[in-house]
Amino acid sequence: MDTITSTKNPRIKRLLELQQKSALRRSEGIFVVEGERELQHCIEAGFEVDTLYVCPSLCNLAGLPQCRRYEVSEAVYQRIAYRGTTEGVVAEVRSRASSLSELDVVCNATKAPLFVVLESVEKPGNLGAVLRSADAAGVSAVIVCDPLTDLYNPNVIRSSIGAIFTVPTIACSSEDCIRYLKSHNISILTAQLQDSKPYYDTDMKRPTAIVMGTESTGLTDQWRQAADSHIRIPMLGNLDSLNVSISAAILMFEAVRQRQTP
Amino acid sequence: MDTITSTKNPRIKRLLELQQKSALRRSEGIFVVEGERELQHCIEAGFEVDTLYVCPSLCNLAGLPQCRRYEVSEAVYQRIAYRGTTEGVVAEVRSRASSLSELDVVCNATKAPLFVVLESVEKPGNLGAVLRSADAAGVSAVIVCDPLTDLYNPNVIRSSIGAIFTVPTIACSSEDCIRYLKSHNISILTAQLQDSKPYYDTDMKRPTAIVMGTESTGLTDQWRQAADSHIRIPMLGNLDSLNVSISAAILMFEAVRQRQTP
Repeated sequence: MDTITSTKNPRIKRLLELQQKSALRRSEGIFVVEGERELQHCIEAGFEVDTLYVCPSLCNLAGLPQCRRYEVSEAVYQRIAYRGTTEGVVAEVRSRASSLSELDVVCNATKAPLFVVLESVEKPGNLGAVLRSADAAGVSAVIVCDPLTDLYNPNVIRSSIGAIFTVPTIACSSEDCIRYLKSHNISILTAQLQDSKPYYDTDMKRPTAIVMGTESTGLTDQWRQAADSHIRIPMLGNLDSLNVSISAAILMFEAVRQRQTP
Repeated sequence: MDTITSTKNPRIKRLLELQQKSALRRSEGIFVVEGERELQHCIEAGFEVDTLYVCPSLCNLAGLPQCRRYEVSEAVYQRIAYRGTTEGVVAEVRSRASSLSELDVVCNATKAPLFVVLESVEKPGNLGAVLRSADAAGVSAVIVCDPLTDLYNPNVIRSSIGAIFTVPTIACSSEDCIRYLKSHNISILTAQLQDSKPYYDTDMKRPTAIVMGTESTGLTDQWRQAADSHIRIPMLGNLDSLNVSISAAILMFEAVRQRQTP
C-alpha cells in the first residue's frame, strides 16, 4: 500500500473538498466520516464505506472494513482530520437516498411512533444536537423538511456524535411529510407561540410528530394549518428565546415522560 | 474624540488580551461585552461600563451609557468584534464579586426558589447554553461550583445571548454551596445514572436545586452524598449520551411543568 505524504495528492484534495462542499457530496453520492465511534455506528447502520484513509501510527487497523484503503502520513492526517480527532481514520462513505416509505417499517414496529420534524433547519450544529437528543429519547425517526443543510454535513455528523446513523433520518418536502403523517393518522403537534397551549397539557402518548421551525422565523403556514395541536414552551424569563435543539429536547422528553408514566 | 485606526494601539491590544485571557480579566476586574442587546442587558443588571469602543459608521450612538469612549475605524472594529457582530460596539465592563449571600434576596422573594447548580463546568458554550435555558425557565439563580471557566469568558456571554446578565449567577465552592442549600432547606437533586429514579418521579415543587456534573466524569462524591434525591434522565437510545445543557434544560422544564400544573 502506498503512503500518501502530500496534502496536494489529488485524492486528498478531493477529500478536503468533500468535507467542505455539499454540492460535491451530492453529485458524487459520497460523504466523509471521521472518528472510530462514528464510523462504527455508520457501518452498523448499513452504510457502505467507499475509501478509508488511515494513519497507521495512530490507528488500530483491526476492525476496519474491507475496502479501498490508503495510508496517510501524520501530517496529511492532521490536515484531513476535520474535527481534530487523533484516532487516525477518515472514511469516504456512500450516501443513500432516503424516502418517507422507510418509515413504514418504524410505524409497523411500534404502536405509537414518535417523530421529530424539523422544517428548514439552518445550522448543522442544531440538527446534529437534535439527533443526539433524539437517540437518547428513543425517537422513531427524525424528518428534515426542505432542509437548508445537507444531512451529511461534517458538522451534523460531529455534533450528533453518530446519532445521524443510529436514528432513522429522512429528508423530504414539507408537503410530502404532511401527507405521510396525515395518511398514517399521526398527530401533528406544531411548536409555536401563537394560539397554542403548554406542551405538557397535550397528549403525546398516541402516534405523534413534534414539528419545529427555525429559531428566526418559526414554522410556515402549511404546517400551522396541518397541525392537530399547537404547543408552546412557556417562556418565563426576559429573553423569550430557546435554542431549537433545547426546545426539541424538552418536547421529546415530555413524550418520554408521558409514555413511561402509567 | 480620537479615532483609533491601528490594531497595534495599546488600548486595542489590551482589549484583545482581555477577550482571550481569563487571568487578565480577573486581575483587572474587567470583562468584554459585544453587541447592543447583550450590552443593554448588562447595563440593566447594574454592571458598570468602564470603556466603550464604537465604530460610528456602524453604531447608533444614542442610548449608549456615559463613560470613557473611543471611536474606532471599521478595520479595527472587525478585529475587536470577537463574535463577528456588525453592531459597532464593544465594551469593557467592571466585573463584581459574586457571593452566595446574594441568593438571600431570591430566597426571600419566592416561596420555592429553583436553582441550577453546575459543578466544574468546562466548556463556556455549555455554561452559556444553560444560562439561556435558565432564563426561559424562570430559574431563580445559576450557581457554578469550582468552575473551570470564568463566568465572563466571551463564549459564555455569547452563547447565553445575554442571560448571564438576566439570571443571577454565582460562582463559589461546592462546599460552600452545599452548606448554603442545606441551611436554607433546599432539596438537592443530583443528576446521576447510578442509584437514581426518573426525574419526573421526583417532586420539584418545593425549594429545589438541580445539580449537574461534567459530561465526562459526572458529579463528585460530596454532591452525591449531600443529595436529597438522585435523579436520572432515562436513556432510551444507543449512545447513552446527552449534552449537559440539554440535560439541564429537560430538568429545569420538568420543574416548570410541575409548578405550572395544578
